[in-house]
Amino acid sequence: MLIAALQMEPVSGDIDANLEKIERAVKSAALMGARLLVAPELALTGYALGQRFATLAEPAEGPMVGRIRGLSRDNGVAIAVGFPERAGDHVYNSAVLALPDGGIHIYRKCHLYGPKERAAFRASSAPPAVYDFDGLKLGMLICYDVEFPEMVRGLALAGAQLVLVPTALPAGPSARQVSRLIVPSRAMENQLFIAYADLCGTENGASYEGRSVIAAPDGEYLARAGREEALLLARINPAGYAVTEAETPYLADRQPEVYRQMKQ
Amino acid sequence: MLIAALQMEPVSGDIDANLEKIERAVKSAALMGARLLVAPELALTGYALGQRFATLAEPAEGPMVGRIRGLSRDNGVAIAVGFPERAGDHVYNSAVLALPDGGIHIYRKCHLYGPKERAAFRASSAPPAVYDFDGLKLGMLICYDVEFPEMVRGLALAGAQLVLVPTALPAGPSARQVSRLIVPSRAMENQLFIAYADLCGTENGASYEGRSVIAAPDGEYLARAGREEALLLARINPAGYAVTEAETPYLADRQPEVYRQMKQ
Repeated sequence: MLIAALQMEPVSGDIDANLEKIERAVKSAALMGARLLVAPELALTGYALGQRFATLAEPAEGPMVGRIRGLSRDNGVAIAVGFPERAGDHVYNSAVLALPDGGIHIYRKCHLYGPKERAAFRASSAPPAVYDFDGLKLGMLICYDVEFPEMVRGLALAGAQLVLVPTALPAGPSARQVSRLIVPSRAMENQLFIAYADLCGTENGASYEGRSVIAAPDGEYLARAGREEALLLARINPAGYAVTEAETPYLADRQPEVYRQMKQ
Repeated sequence: MLIAALQMEPVSGDIDANLEKIERAVKSAALMGARLLVAPELALTGYALGQRFATLAEPAEGPMVGRIRGLSRDNGVAIAVGFPERAGDHVYNSAVLALPDGGIHIYRKCHLYGPKERAAFRASSAPPAVYDFDGLKLGMLICYDVEFPEMVRGLALAGAQLVLVPTALPAGPSARQVSRLIVPSRAMENQLFIAYADLCGTENGASYEGRSVIAAPDGEYLARAGREEALLLARINPAGYAVTEAETPYLADRQPEVYRQMKQ
């Protein structure tokens, strides 16, 4: 399957402008034959919006997600993208996975990063699920979530072969290490693919790291971006990693009876 | 604290020759002011010995470990090194941590790698412990163990600040990724130091990867070796990573109630 990761500079608070960027990338990816595109965390609104999320947030059945569903249906491309989700009195930092058949899945971020996110959003305590798409098992996480090995391990043990990660990494040394070390390590230690799509550029004085990656089960990059806007397209082939799985059968060699005796 | 990691080519089955290599490194590290040295997995005997471990193995109270204890006492340097341990009818792939005060701690490998190790050794189901040394909290793992995020997480949650990892990586692409990606990622995601000391060269037709590293809580190398024999000395300063801990407070931001709902 050919998949795409969109690295984009958000237009702060301008849903139409962000949708236009996503639409162009979806059409371009579809022309190349891609079946799936991942866009960044909160890419529909922008990320550095503080208390404005309270007014920008929409339910999963609202018009913002509705337009993503339309794009997915019209182009035959599954789309994962972040948006602020209104659910009753709460606002979640969520991602939708819109499928070409019109179906959607919603994941709400469990690990909020820093005081600004915690002021704007409610953390979810619902674990990520595994979804079927075109014969592939997909998981979804958001940004900081993927830095916790427990989250990707849980998805791998539930059968995920590809984890989609909309992200928004504040520029800096830690962000570089997340993209360079932690994401490829998660892919290797769980023998799966990770598509990690970041914001880039600046927004209201905040600066994003970029460096989106599509990582493979052997810890190598299938594609990686620098710091500017980019569209990464790469073919993923889960059957192509038999040697890696034979050399490092991590999931088969786990020792849960040891882990149960340690604080985890 | 200045610490050392010794990368050495084993002399297969020749305990005296291997002890001599270790002794020279311990004396050299002591002269520089190091307080601790990590040597590779099964460095006292060699690693590619198949069924010979049954005869080479000694109890922790035996002469092989006794000579390491003597080296530690005489040079004022704690020494972690792998040896085949006889315990009743069983042989474990173990590591001793010998302390200058004469005390020892033993860790037995929990994750045996591949059919040869599983034929020669019994896997331990006892989790690794945390030891105090010179005001620092130390953990010990052996080779493949460190590739499982659960093991380092458990040590970090038990307070470990430095994890000592005697290792023996068969040369190849997976081995390169372990040293390049997984070990630094474990250090960063758990905000601790890892001293990862590998064999190098060849032994009975087996070839080792080398590429020993001392990794820091920010995911950077404090020192790294290539593929030849090497002695790495680096100062570790747990108090020097306050910025990293503030940017990525992984241990504080864990969400155990989410993990409990996933298979782990």
